[in-house]
Amino acid sequence: MEPVAVVILLALIEYVAFGMLVGRARGKYGVHAPAVAGHEVFERYFRVHQNTLEMLVVFVPAIWLFGTYVDPTWAALLGLVYVVGRILYLRGYVADPAKREVGFGLSVLPVIALLLGALWGAGRQLL
Amino acid sequence: MEPVAVVILLALIEYVAFGMLVGRARGKYGVHAPAVAGHEVFERYFRVHQNTLEMLVVFVPAIWLFGTYVDPTWAALLGLVYVVGRILYLRGYVADPAKREVGFGLSVLPVIALLLGALWGAGRQLL
Amino acid sequence: MEPVAVVILLALIEYVAFGMLVGRARGKYGVHAPAVAGHEVFERYFRVHQNTLEMLVVFVPAIWLFGTYVDPTWAALLGLVYVVGRILYLRGYVADPAKREVGFGLSVLPVIALLLGALWGAGRQLL
Repeated sequence: MEPVAVVILLALIEYVAFGMLVGRARGKYGVHAPAVAGHEVFERYFRVHQNTLEMLVVFVPAIWLFGTYVDPTWAALLGLVYVVGRILYLRGYVADPAKREVGFGLSVLPVIALLLGALWGAGRQLL
Repeated sequence: MEPVAVVILLALIEYVAFGMLVGRARGKYGVHAPAVAGHEVFERYFRVHQNTLEMLVVFVPAIWLFGTYVDPTWAALLGLVYVVGRILYLRGYVADPAKREVGFGLSVLPVIALLLGALWGAGRQLL
Repeated sequence: MEPVAVVILLALIEYVAFGMLVGRARGKYGVHAPAVAGHEVFERYFRVHQNTLEMLVVFVPAIWLFGTYVDPTWAALLGLVYVVGRILYLRGYVADPAKREVGFGLSVLPVIALLLGALWGAGRQLL
């Protein structure tokens, strides 16, 4: 499971980095805590971070269970697509919210594949 | 641990489905990203999704540790109550925020039981 | 891994307790669901809870993987620093958002250490 562990850690580090970008945007656009609105570009970073949180809580258990019940190498490869997809999502969303679609798809599709694959893998052993 | 894995995956799929309902409500009530407010019903879907995120980050480790240190079958059964409770929570909250109590209780109580049971199970082996 | 499991469960219980403080602040400051703004002190509790969610999704997998690939006792000790740091963060932030720095640092640093340590530990076995 080491490849899966490494990919999970890369996804976590990416998420922490996105959080740092939110902090930087707070300073740059003058949006002071606890406010979470007030400047359009700040709000884009904030929503990317928040949306990545929403993905991450599904991604981590899904990749781990896929790695356990289906195949760890495929789990790690799908996980890498997710990590890269999130970078494209960040770049697209910050440039223009309408441009977030490609990165969104590239990070959502591997998560759906991990989720359904893991359900098939674990469900098969239940029956 | 297969029953626990399957219930975790069902809870994750439920959460993804709630996210899709938020996306649908964005279109239906004209609340465009990155805005997260602007229509009462949209905000209810948004809060259900957000609250389910808050539950999920506790539910997944708690059910896994309960399954490991107490009993996997009981873990899976408590987990199923949580999954059903969240559906009632969604239906109640969207109809009227004051009606979210039953579903909230039915999803919070199994999480508390998993949390305290797992603490007892793991703590017992520590001492 | 029992010490790691116990520390994860303490961090989860702490997070649930922070959520209860948000609920109490809703009543105390008259901010009714689904609103998440309207009173400065309520917003501080809300942001502490939200920020702790953001930390928790990184903390739980990071401490588990550090415990697996590096050392479970060190994982548990770093995890305890995180749990205590979050209490200081809550107390500081609620008193004055400018005073959240010490608790923030004390809870972020162990998470960064767990993350990088786990990456080193799992990466070493991959190569």
